[in-house]
Amino acid sequence: MSQHAQLIGLDWGTSSLRAYLYDGDGKVIASRQHAWGIRHLPEGGFPSALRAITSGWPPCTIVAAGMVGSRQGWREVPYLDLPADAAAIAHGMLRVEACTSHALWIAPGLHRKEPADVMRGEETQIVGALTLRPEYQADACFVLPGTHSKWATVNGGRIVAFDTVMTGELYALLMKHSILGAGIDLARERSFCEETFARGVRAVKDSGASGVFGCLFSVRALMLAGQLAADDLPDFVSGLLIGEEFRIASLRQIQAAPLCLIGEPALCQRYIVAAAIFGHAPPTVIDDAAAQGLWRIASAGGLLEHATLHSYAGADT
Amino acid sequence: MSQHAQLIGLDWGTSSLRAYLYDGDGKVIASRQHAWGIRHLPEGGFPSALRAITSGWPPCTIVAAGMVGSRQGWREVPYLDLPADAAAIAHGMLRVEACTSHALWIAPGLHRKEPADVMRGEETQIVGALTLRPEYQADACFVLPGTHSKWATVNGGRIVAFDTVMTGELYALLMKHSILGAGIDLARERSFCEETFARGVRAVKDSGASGVFGCLFSVRALMLAGQLAADDLPDFVSGLLIGEEFRIASLRQIQAAPLCLIGEPALCQRYIVAAAIFGHAPPTVIDDAAAQGLWRIASAGGLLEHATLHSYAGADT
Repeated sequence: MSQHAQLIGLDWGTSSLRAYLYDGDGKVIASRQHAWGIRHLPEGGFPSALRAITSGWPPCTIVAAGMVGSRQGWREVPYLDLPADAAAIAHGMLRVEACTSHALWIAPGLHRKEPADVMRGEETQIVGALTLRPEYQADACFVLPGTHSKWATVNGGRIVAFDTVMTGELYALLMKHSILGAGIDLARERSFCEETFARGVRAVKDSGASGVFGCLFSVRALMLAGQLAADDLPDFVSGLLIGEEFRIASLRQIQAAPLCLIGEPALCQRYIVAAAIFGHAPPTVIDDAAAQGLWRIASAGGLLEHATLHSYAGADT
Repeated sequence: MSQHAQLIGLDWGTSSLRAYLYDGDGKVIASRQHAWGIRHLPEGGFPSALRAITSGWPPCTIVAAGMVGSRQGWREVPYLDLPADAAAIAHGMLRVEACTSHALWIAPGLHRKEPADVMRGEETQIVGALTLRPEYQADACFVLPGTHSKWATVNGGRIVAFDTVMTGELYALLMKHSILGAGIDLARERSFCEETFARGVRAVKDSGASGVFGCLFSVRALMLAGQLAADDLPDFVSGLLIGEEFRIASLRQIQAAPLCLIGEPALCQRYIVAAAIFGHAPPTVIDDAAAQGLWRIASAGGLLEHATLHSYAGADT
């Protein structure tokens, strides 16, 4: 079946590259994924990766977001100040002149000045989530779990505040390199133990203003005392760290706003458990946010207005 | 000059072994140090390390403290409950029957049950510090900075409470393995920049109940914004982590008790800077605490009562 393609979207992060091909209505008619994050590019660098991931696709205009716009990316796109919405982000896009195969535009990330914080890529996911679920435009808290988890506040359709917590990175550091992970076989498959995870979340919640830093060594002490099995340690530490995100968030009085999760389903499941322990209503999980966000930003930036519709055979949908 | 030796003390930790030879008055007449921590033993294990470090010394009774009494040590000595003083620690010592060259006694560590926490070796340093500075027996807070920093409260001559914070280990993890340390040449010699360190301490103090976990990513953001030089990053992160120790301690209302520091002078200097920022009176730094503590525990345990005085030529004092 032949379709019409109008736009290519790239969600180009540190460790992965996702490409979406859209029809004239913003529907994704093909998508591809590769490990060519900006730190793991193939020979030939950015142009090579782009050529390979769009191979066989029509030469549509491209909108990209994520670390591809960082200093280490294809072209550095300056951060935008808060508050920001789709229109502001679209206005901040820069074109990559070095890309001769396509009209390639990269969206900016956002920064907060005091205390300093930055995001690249998550702003596009939030824009996508707000497009998919406009009922959250008025007032919501978006949580994007990951290596560097983001907690963003949306008011009146704009991202007004956000915080980054290095949860995923710290978890990996502690498991791989610290005394806590010593003797833990990380390669072994474990099913998620909600009870153990919840025990970690509660421990950090009960610590009050003290927080996770004062709880970490207890993991070692519990092991020595036979009160924590080696197999339970990863979920317990995960509970402490994710619990800490909620503990910090609870100080910022975001309790009232509905919570939306954007991320891997297995990771989101952990945040749903932690949210309940911290007294939140069940969060909404929003899928495909990046793909929607790229389309929305392209649209807000006028990239679709004069775009040609290319016919596409749709071999890899 | 010939002297009389009465006791050998061993401060035997994870990464180092220190040995002290005492005269009949508890004065250290010789001391040696080696990297034979319990995880870095020479061929032949514990007996070999002991033989080598006491080579040429008289066959005095030995008292040892630290990780040598852990499950991975020479003999596991069960932890003591709080509160504990020199007499209780001495009472908890166990003899290593496998050591045929000496009468070797290992002191127990301490544990706190709820929330779980443990120490091994630091209790002996605190006992030594209280011997050297008896004015702190009534009421003091002892801080022992390191890989796993300990904060211990002493009341009426007894250790009544303590907490462990993984400051040194987290600092090393973040510098060596995280995105924060990426691009930092750790091998390069840097002089301590008190101003940068203090900036980190103040950042975590100003975070209030939020704490260091919410501040860590700001290090990256400050670097990206050109507001923190790569050369300043290690001292800034050190300030955040040591500041977090003081932030947590300030929640436990130890502000009134005098602060005593036991540790490396360069590390203690950082704690003195942080203490001032958190409104503490200047802490007292106490040296040679481990050597004094081993003697005090041996004495409280009656190990000196029937000990023979051996003549010793004193070649390595």
